[in-house]
Amino acid sequence: MKSATEDLTELLSPLADDLKSARGILTERIFQAEDFSERLLIARNAAAQDASELPGWLERITEIPDKDDGSLAAEMAEHLITHGGKMFRSALVLAVIRACGGGAQDAAKLAAAMEMIHMATLLHDDVIDRSDTRRGAASMPARFDNSPTVLMGDHLFARAFELLSECGRVEIVASAARATSKMCLGEVEQLEWIGRADIPEEVYFRLIERKTAALMASCCETAAFLCENDSHVEEWNKFGCLLGLIFQMVDDLLDFTADEQRLGKAVGSDAEAGKYTLPLILYRDRLGSREAFAEFLAGCASQEDIRAALEGECVFKDVRSRIEDLVENCQGYLNRLADSQIDPAGCHLLSGMVDFVALRDY
Amino acid sequence: MKSATEDLTELLSPLADDLKSARGILTERIFQAEDFSERLLIARNAAAQDASELPGWLERITEIPDKDDGSLAAEMAEHLITHGGKMFRSALVLAVIRACGGGAQDAAKLAAAMEMIHMATLLHDDVIDRSDTRRGAASMPARFDNSPTVLMGDHLFARAFELLSECGRVEIVASAARATSKMCLGEVEQLEWIGRADIPEEVYFRLIERKTAALMASCCETAAFLCENDSHVEEWNKFGCLLGLIFQMVDDLLDFTADEQRLGKAVGSDAEAGKYTLPLILYRDRLGSREAFAEFLAGCASQEDIRAALEGECVFKDVRSRIEDLVENCQGYLNRLADSQIDPAGCHLLSGMVDFVALRDY
Repeated sequence: MKSATEDLTELLSPLADDLKSARGILTERIFQAEDFSERLLIARNAAAQDASELPGWLERITEIPDKDDGSLAAEMAEHLITHGGKMFRSALVLAVIRACGGGAQDAAKLAAAMEMIHMATLLHDDVIDRSDTRRGAASMPARFDNSPTVLMGDHLFARAFELLSECGRVEIVASAARATSKMCLGEVEQLEWIGRADIPEEVYFRLIERKTAALMASCCETAAFLCENDSHVEEWNKFGCLLGLIFQMVDDLLDFTADEQRLGKAVGSDAEAGKYTLPLILYRDRLGSREAFAEFLAGCASQEDIRAALEGECVFKDVRSRIEDLVENCQGYLNRLADSQIDPAGCHLLSGMVDFVALRDY
Repeated sequence: MKSATEDLTELLSPLADDLKSARGILTERIFQAEDFSERLLIARNAAAQDASELPGWLERITEIPDKDDGSLAAEMAEHLITHGGKMFRSALVLAVIRACGGGAQDAAKLAAAMEMIHMATLLHDDVIDRSDTRRGAASMPARFDNSPTVLMGDHLFARAFELLSECGRVEIVASAARATSKMCLGEVEQLEWIGRADIPEEVYFRLIERKTAALMASCCETAAFLCENDSHVEEWNKFGCLLGLIFQMVDDLLDFTADEQRLGKAVGSDAEAGKYTLPLILYRDRLGSREAFAEFLAGCASQEDIRAALEGECVFKDVRSRIEDLVENCQGYLNRLADSQIDPAGCHLLSGMVDFVALRDY
């Protein structure tokens, strides 16, 4: 493992142009709405005199322009693009493509599509969790209300699958669809476990595998499919799955240990929302009984009390050590993939991304 | 036009076996959840001794069974299947396939997928409209709450796109994705027009084209793609679009004129929810001013008052006449398609479906 967290932007600088293309496609697809008159529009340019000529009253209606400027949909799209995040999923897709030798047509389309799926799930999560803020701004439901947010999420899903279809391989669509379905089931299952301090460790891992790792696995898998690197698709999937587990374990750790300023949001928000993640699960298991754990939680006046207790029992160290296990595993996959791939620089970039994900402090 | 509405079940009896297959696939896919241990599971069966062997703590975790029985997701799936509706979109797909000569592998998969997209939008609509009932039972959000319903809708979308990818042609995925995206934008736009009695007639048609006709157009288009009937895809799309417009215009008319017992829900619910559909739009335009229309609405004590006023101004007759225009147009497409298709019985079935949609009284 590297000893320091590199800055993500700097790390991803070799992908800067590709990321820009991906963001361009994403922006264009979120805004673009088909023209009603064009689609409904039927006979006008075709056999205007035959039996299928449109009745006069409908002809007239199809002539109006289909302007979406200034509409609610356009305002929401604007908000989405402005608060677009760091596009880590796009970067992952692009890095794997580079590692597979690069040059794939439609790389930016695939990268945009996977990011849009992620954005769609964030929108629906914010509705479900009733979150008021996201990335330092008002969340979509806080600004536009729940209903349009649900629909904008659906719109993003749909546009993403349209883009995926344009990548030309049904395997790509299938992989992303499976990952999306998993994420939904993971979220449904998470709802069942909210507020339950008895959540088993294995359920925690199943949840994060579904909620976070499945999509990262699919980012890597679809990138390999796009490069027609079919013989290594399975390894790429597993590499992405491990990276996703690391990503979420670090996220959950940071909710206890991060500096609030640096993190950009309040720490301790998971436990407050009734989500018991790995650090608390490990601490609970050390206490040995649910009663003792309930007593402990009741006795903690602040997030700082919880942090100090977990620190005292070396829980964070234990979580770190598990993360390191996975990082080693993940880098192992990468090393073996590097032997069979064309571009060592691409693999090196991915290795840096693994370290970044594991060592980041925000 | 036929003079009487045939019973839908009787009408669709030639498709009974195909519809049963479609329902089977739909049921299986809604329930089926992948096994965590299988997917995460990585190295166990592969190179167990190499660097990517799972750390012991994760090995242990992947051994637990991944049971979804009795879970919230399983209960919701059960509810969905039990109140599955008449599967009109599936029937439309299957009828077009039959008209194109039939025998397409994956016909049932495509039929199931298009129905699942429709089901997903209904779930999200019920969240958005805060509907308590659907098809004579408690709606999904009323029974399970909004959050799981949003997620179950997403799950249905994802599973549907997985099925579409299995149909083997990216054109099919692209068509369904475009239709889905349109439906979402149509719903967003509808939210903007709720409670606005000044909605222009052309906006009404744009809304129903997006909300209802786009998916029916895609049902027909994807069926043609599946049959590799690429040279007539555009006509099939337009046929489906017209059928969808008819479907929704009739729906909106029935909200004024239907018998409540026969319809299975309260009449007048659109206007009550602030949705001004074609009959009221036409009546408003006859009154000539918004003020007169507002006065009229304020003066109506009941749904019956509204109905009587519209009847008196021949509004329903006017709507009916427009529906007949579209039916003629729609049958025109079908006649020309029939000349180039293999199976006249399939085209005859579709013609019956058009008449059913136009003449139904529920």
